[in-house]
Amino acid sequence: MIFSQVDTILQQICPSGFKKPVLIGVSGGPDSLCLLDIAYRLGYPLIAAHFNHGLRPEADADAAFVDRTGATLGVRVLQGKEDVAGYAREHKLTIEEAARLLRYRFLFTQARLNSAQAVAVAHTADDQVETVIMHFLRGSGLSGLKGMVMVTLPNPWSQEIPLIRPLLSSWREEIVRYCQDRRLEPVEDRTNLDTAYHRNRLRHELIPFLERFNPQIGKVIWRTAQTLSGDDEILAQAVWSAWEGCLAAQGPGYLAFHHSSLLMQPRGMQRRLVRRGIDRVLSGLDDIGFDIIENAVNFINTPSKTASLSLAAGMYLLLEGDRLWLAAWETELPGFDWPQASGTSPIYLDAPGETPLPHGWRLKTDRIATDDLPASFLTNLNDYQAWSSAECLHFPLSVRPRRPGDRYQPLGMEGKSQKVSDLMINAKLPRRARKAWPLVCSGEDIIWIPGQPIAHRFRIQPGTRQVLYLQMYKS
Amino acid sequence: MIFSQVDTILQQICPSGFKKPVLIGVSGGPDSLCLLDIAYRLGYPLIAAHFNHGLRPEADADAAFVDRTGATLGVRVLQGKEDVAGYAREHKLTIEEAARLLRYRFLFTQARLNSAQAVAVAHTADDQVETVIMHFLRGSGLSGLKGMVMVTLPNPWSQEIPLIRPLLSSWREEIVRYCQDRRLEPVEDRTNLDTAYHRNRLRHELIPFLERFNPQIGKVIWRTAQTLSGDDEILAQAVWSAWEGCLAAQGPGYLAFHHSSLLMQPRGMQRRLVRRGIDRVLSGLDDIGFDIIENAVNFINTPSKTASLSLAAGMYLLLEGDRLWLAAWETELPGFDWPQASGTSPIYLDAPGETPLPHGWRLKTDRIATDDLPASFLTNLNDYQAWSSAECLHFPLSVRPRRPGDRYQPLGMEGKSQKVSDLMINAKLPRRARKAWPLVCSGEDIIWIPGQPIAHRFRIQPGTRQVLYLQMYKS
Repeated sequence: MIFSQVDTILQQICPSGFKKPVLIGVSGGPDSLCLLDIAYRLGYPLIAAHFNHGLRPEADADAAFVDRTGATLGVRVLQGKEDVAGYAREHKLTIEEAARLLRYRFLFTQARLNSAQAVAVAHTADDQVETVIMHFLRGSGLSGLKGMVMVTLPNPWSQEIPLIRPLLSSWREEIVRYCQDRRLEPVEDRTNLDTAYHRNRLRHELIPFLERFNPQIGKVIWRTAQTLSGDDEILAQAVWSAWEGCLAAQGPGYLAFHHSSLLMQPRGMQRRLVRRGIDRVLSGLDDIGFDIIENAVNFINTPSKTASLSLAAGMYLLLEGDRLWLAAWETELPGFDWPQASGTSPIYLDAPGETPLPHGWRLKTDRIATDDLPASFLTNLNDYQAWSSAECLHFPLSVRPRRPGDRYQPLGMEGKSQKVSDLMINAKLPRRARKAWPLVCSGEDIIWIPGQPIAHRFRIQPGTRQVLYLQMYKS
Repeated sequence: MIFSQVDTILQQICPSGFKKPVLIGVSGGPDSLCLLDIAYRLGYPLIAAHFNHGLRPEADADAAFVDRTGATLGVRVLQGKEDVAGYAREHKLTIEEAARLLRYRFLFTQARLNSAQAVAVAHTADDQVETVIMHFLRGSGLSGLKGMVMVTLPNPWSQEIPLIRPLLSSWREEIVRYCQDRRLEPVEDRTNLDTAYHRNRLRHELIPFLERFNPQIGKVIWRTAQTLSGDDEILAQAVWSAWEGCLAAQGPGYLAFHHSSLLMQPRGMQRRLVRRGIDRVLSGLDDIGFDIIENAVNFINTPSKTASLSLAAGMYLLLEGDRLWLAAWETELPGFDWPQASGTSPIYLDAPGETPLPHGWRLKTDRIATDDLPASFLTNLNDYQAWSSAECLHFPLSVRPRRPGDRYQPLGMEGKSQKVSDLMINAKLPRRARKAWPLVCSGEDIIWIPGQPIAHRFRIQPGTRQVLYLQMYKS
């Protein structure tokens, strides 16, 4: 039963069949011994890899046992050993974390060196159930509740070599029976160092307790994991496609979403996009708290007046126009894609001519007879060009940043002039672009704020014969 | 705290604000009393509806208490009462199921009669946690693990009136404190008749036990529900769009998928589509087992030779060409979209002329001089027309179904003739279409099987002057 089941699974998940070796992590316990024995009988080329955590008195005896087992079968055994406790101290990890990290690093290093097609570990259906319950108790969402998967690629240790779990549908009971039938004599099963204590309480206290509520609890949870695993795959596809639609920019330490696209997504998708975004900006954050995500999603849906939100872990959200930036505090945001004046002193303009401004922007001016005005003058849809009556201007014109007290009345805007600073806020200019936004002046008068219509006073009027054409563009 | 929280929630979820009444289900326990009191203080027009299950000695006293509470507040109270136990016996339901069914029916009937904007029930954050754990123990997948939602519309009782749960983010502890602060004196809380026993064990045994593993277990599970609820929304969208892409036909008791489209979906999506399909074909099946879905999905990915699979619950899958039928056994599948001979005796053909066949199909014949052959003769892409040398035919031609021993060699097919029955299988003719598939005969010889090239023997050859054109079509 278990033999043919694992046979079928191995056929499905071994990428190169019998051509390249499968590297099996063998602790010497019943699970890994059973896996080794079945794969051996099926004729797969094998490497047994044993990692000695050096944490228990019997560790060396276990290593020797795996050596003997390999010798009996004629399977090569690779031994690894490191100072787990020391590594844990040094890197501020728990013993379990350090053990896991060093073990998998060993397995995948050996797999690479020996051109293995896969690293196989002996997690069972019972391990799966325990994993799911552990995640349920921790509240880790779908990605945790789906449990482990049969094939993981890419995985944290390799882009090419899959991590496979051929026993994931097999119950410990069948494995123990298999070992008995085959007269295998595994060492005592203490393989699973990860959170061993927690896991043992789960196994010996919680699961029996849950069985009082549902005697089939193991099977039920195993199935839940299967189902959720499939759901997670669907979600991953959906998130991927939403991500593609919402991402506006990304770079080291930052990314930007199209805010309007985010708003069209259901809340659950917003959550997942933010989570993925945070993961991109500050990869390696293990547990992004529920509240952080909720705050971020609330901000997306009702951005505060200050247009920015500090997230934990040294990140923030910043809304600029339709761009929602997600960035680490220390990152310099890119995308100074706005015209800017340079410094505080005015730059004088050639008219006609072109004047270079910072960040590759240029201000072009031209004189046109009113009769020669292009039709676009009337249907001007580009905020970065304007036509002024040349006759009321004092040359040379200049470009400067705003000053306290600056006021402006754009053409067509009813009523009186308004503060330039207010106008910039209303026009949703990004905060960091406002300070040096270029104002085109004639003497002391602002004749044009690029992005706005020409100043009312300097508009073309009946009787205007000479027109000054202004255009701001990026070369 | 709870007051302002519920205020915010009611503003978000009450579709018509203060214009139409909210009907609140009031048992008289702390939860519903708290909800009633808050909504009353916020100024919502209210109706209190009490359903007397008549199951407990204090039932009538509880009803009277709700009457008095309504009178004190000046809120109208509607009383409902039915013989729950009798209804349960009659309809073979558990007491809990019957109580729930009758209670919600009462609430929504009254909501409709009184033009209420919503039916509000007082499920709390604790109820949410209990619900999620209950589903976890049962293995009910994402749709169960996501718990209850704040607003359900459509719901099983109405397409227009939402079922709302304004206390779903409030913990029982806050509610009890609120009742004390407001000097409300609720009756003993035994409102939740649904699976009361199971729920009580959950509340008093399991949750305290789980708290030993994670003291925050309640909050953690509540958050899991929130997150999964968002995920479920994304999934629903994805499933909806895949459903649209895969559905080929549907009617009472059956539906069909495009098999090729199903095959392109990930396994998790196939599961969900099958589940939804089963739900459509036999609505009201409460629990479609995991194994049924897995069998169906396995069949989809590797259809067996017999091309059909019996599912439980009186349903089956049937693969016909690219159509995957999902149907109840007693349903007559539609779509006899194939040409068929009628009965077993031959139908004689007019040539030239048109002969009607069953199901609206017609067989048209025409005599053409070889010189007048259309160009399409050479590039014939329509399986339902053919050209034969008229000179070798014996008129009148006839149409009949296959007989044991029939053989055929299509033009261009190498080698010898093959059994007609094998040819039909190879050509992937639907099983139920094969038996009466029309064969066009000249005397005892089959000259054409519609869907196949003309018989080799009757092809146009050098020297053929008269051609018989054959076309099968549906009018």
